[in-house]
Amino acid sequence: MTRTLLPDLTPDRVAAAARRVMARCDELARVTATPGEIERVYLSTEHARVNRLAAEWMREVGMSTRQDAAGNQIGRLDAIHRGASDRDAPALMIGSHLDTVPDAGRFDGIVGVLMALEVVRLLRVPGPDGESSLSPLPFAIEVVAFSDEEGTRFGKALLGSSAVAGTWNDDWWQLTDADGTTLRQAALEFGLDPGRIGEAARRPDELVGYLEAHIEQGPELDRRGQSLAVVSSIASARRFQLVVEGEARHAGGTPYDMRHDALLGASEAALAVERICRGEHHVIGTVGQLEAFPGAVNIVPGEAHFSLDLRGEFDGERDRVWDALSRDLDVIMGRRGLRWRAREVHNAPAVMCAPLLQDVIRAGIRGALPDAPDDPATLFSPAGHDGMSIGAITDVGMLFLRNPDGISHHPDEAVSAADVALGIRALAESVLHLAAEPR
Amino acid sequence: MTRTLLPDLTPDRVAAAARRVMARCDELARVTATPGEIERVYLSTEHARVNRLAAEWMREVGMSTRQDAAGNQIGRLDAIHRGASDRDAPALMIGSHLDTVPDAGRFDGIVGVLMALEVVRLLRVPGPDGESSLSPLPFAIEVVAFSDEEGTRFGKALLGSSAVAGTWNDDWWQLTDADGTTLRQAALEFGLDPGRIGEAARRPDELVGYLEAHIEQGPELDRRGQSLAVVSSIASARRFQLVVEGEARHAGGTPYDMRHDALLGASEAALAVERICRGEHHVIGTVGQLEAFPGAVNIVPGEAHFSLDLRGEFDGERDRVWDALSRDLDVIMGRRGLRWRAREVHNAPAVMCAPLLQDVIRAGIRGALPDAPDDPATLFSPAGHDGMSIGAITDVGMLFLRNPDGISHHPDEAVSAADVALGIRALAESVLHLAAEPR
Repeated sequence: MTRTLLPDLTPDRVAAAARRVMARCDELARVTATPGEIERVYLSTEHARVNRLAAEWMREVGMSTRQDAAGNQIGRLDAIHRGASDRDAPALMIGSHLDTVPDAGRFDGIVGVLMALEVVRLLRVPGPDGESSLSPLPFAIEVVAFSDEEGTRFGKALLGSSAVAGTWNDDWWQLTDADGTTLRQAALEFGLDPGRIGEAARRPDELVGYLEAHIEQGPELDRRGQSLAVVSSIASARRFQLVVEGEARHAGGTPYDMRHDALLGASEAALAVERICRGEHHVIGTVGQLEAFPGAVNIVPGEAHFSLDLRGEFDGERDRVWDALSRDLDVIMGRRGLRWRAREVHNAPAVMCAPLLQDVIRAGIRGALPDAPDDPATLFSPAGHDGMSIGAITDVGMLFLRNPDGISHHPDEAVSAADVALGIRALAESVLHLAAEPR
Repeated sequence: MTRTLLPDLTPDRVAAAARRVMARCDELARVTATPGEIERVYLSTEHARVNRLAAEWMREVGMSTRQDAAGNQIGRLDAIHRGASDRDAPALMIGSHLDTVPDAGRFDGIVGVLMALEVVRLLRVPGPDGESSLSPLPFAIEVVAFSDEEGTRFGKALLGSSAVAGTWNDDWWQLTDADGTTLRQAALEFGLDPGRIGEAARRPDELVGYLEAHIEQGPELDRRGQSLAVVSSIASARRFQLVVEGEARHAGGTPYDMRHDALLGASEAALAVERICRGEHHVIGTVGQLEAFPGAVNIVPGEAHFSLDLRGEFDGERDRVWDALSRDLDVIMGRRGLRWRAREVHNAPAVMCAPLLQDVIRAGIRGALPDAPDDPATLFSPAGHDGMSIGAITDVGMLFLRNPDGISHHPDEAVSAADVALGIRALAESVLHLAAEPR
């Protein structure tokens, strides 16, 4: 059943909010380390500039603002308690990240932060001082702009949200960027105190949950002709570096039956990844790196290295695919007289979106699209998101926006103003549905 | 019918010659730019040192010596004409090369030069001055140690023999080594005069032919349990650099049916090379280099580059395989929505060994192995040799020596002293058979 909780919200007001989001996406796109492209990495001067912009926009809608010890920019709208603001009320966090991959699009992460600000604009009530705003809900609202989700600069993703989740690892301070600058040096230069990183961590009892709107980074909504989806889970991911060892031999003088060609073994492996994952419902595997050694035109490759990125809706599915692939690799390499080994370099379990938050987002979408004939789509997210960290301390819910042709991490990345308008409305309705839940 | 032309040649004398060849292979292996490995490249100090050693050994068997304008080391045994030496008689050249690949074995090329010196030792007659020697044959004998066959330093093979063949290309002077030194600079530093390179060229009327003994660089003789083979031709070779173009996409969000994964296309291509060439009798193809771009763990490769080395006994066979492979690539890439293109970077037609020289080498092998039950093996050489250049000015004949397990261009490269002894005898007998041919 559809219930619109914002009956007074005029289409014009939502359209204006969406136009502001689109214009601010353009404005943030101009804050880049690389002229002509978009690149904005953790602890850079661009990071500082977009935090200042975000803080300004947060204050514009009456939020109090702070930058935390990990460089996350946070705005807060206190709850009302007995007619006054309640600084201690638990908060619903809504947000995403402002950092980018190299040569990025202008929406990934960014649109979720800016939509959260528009939700605040729609829901807030004036504070007693006339300048600040308050949340009309039984909880505070915080808008969070995470400082590092992509991991572009230090090779380690989700740094900002890990600090908030209290899962920061002090070993990370020694990570270096391409110029050899350590994360510690970069933090100091940015004006942060590494010794205080723990202060960024939030306790579960301070939080009601975390909501994030994000472009889909895939084509499913575009294919279905739908604007919005509920996210069921953020993918379970494993990454491996694989090595195939054979024997480097003279390309002219070595007949096929004496060859142990490591590259042909790796080629069969890459095709096996595709074949096995195609037969699965919700597992996707990618070989993104492959190189043959010694890499001479006239030498049969004695070694090949390749990467495997494996993502699944559930850990079990993903692990079953890895087991099946391992058995296939044994057969392939055995037949060719090759040896293979794999080193696991990343393992992140699936983060299931909280059923309650899935329900309120579903209700929010129905509220934004009362005439839609179909139930809202429910999709899992093969891409990683800040919610993967935040899931450690609070419930996570995500709303996906249609992403034309599924192009992301690319300058052609897109989302329509119409879908952003629907998304803002759906997100605002979701928050109201959550507030209406018995607690 | 077997006819031994060296009835007085005692097994002891041949065995001693073979032992000397083996010891000198060890001695030359110590002349290396890389301690613990063998590496000796064109116009290096190691090149100068082995040329001096070779010249010394040439003079030891009574030859006159010179280093030509391309750094080839040449020894000459004049023919006798009316009891005196005939400096103008055409010469039978016998030899191979002294340069190596990186981390080389100790026999490739080298053993052929040293065996030629032993043939001279067996056949020569004293000259009138008691110091020099003369050829007892109706032609002079020259032993040639080519200066560059492998092309290790400047990426262009057969430089030494190309100068002798008069096919030197002045563009090559601008080739650079890994340190940016041009071939011209290197030649000047070595003490050569680039302006006189043409003086290294020989006229066809100065030559009777060219004979070369070489390890097989393949396992055929080892598999057949035979010591020696006649070479029918030196492989026809083409090399290509191929590019596959697809679309780089987010690895998480792009379902298989929307991917145009260039690496999977290239993987199928590498396997197609193997499948097609396996079905052929005498064509062999190798993909030695392959790389995916952008080469990120979490991005579906938008481009892949790979090399193809294609060798065949005959040009037609080789070209037919390339045509078949091209049709396969059209199908593979078409199915995957990929584009492909190939740039041909090398094309060398097959060099057929002269039938007369094949016959005299066959007779030479029979003379060395009078009790062998089988006819000598006839093999084509998939690997390139100096004869590929020299074929432009004179007849070429080659003798292959058994190469255990076919390992070459590797420290484990081997040949037995017993096979070297048989090879020396066969080569000497071949020269006598050639001398006995009506001219």
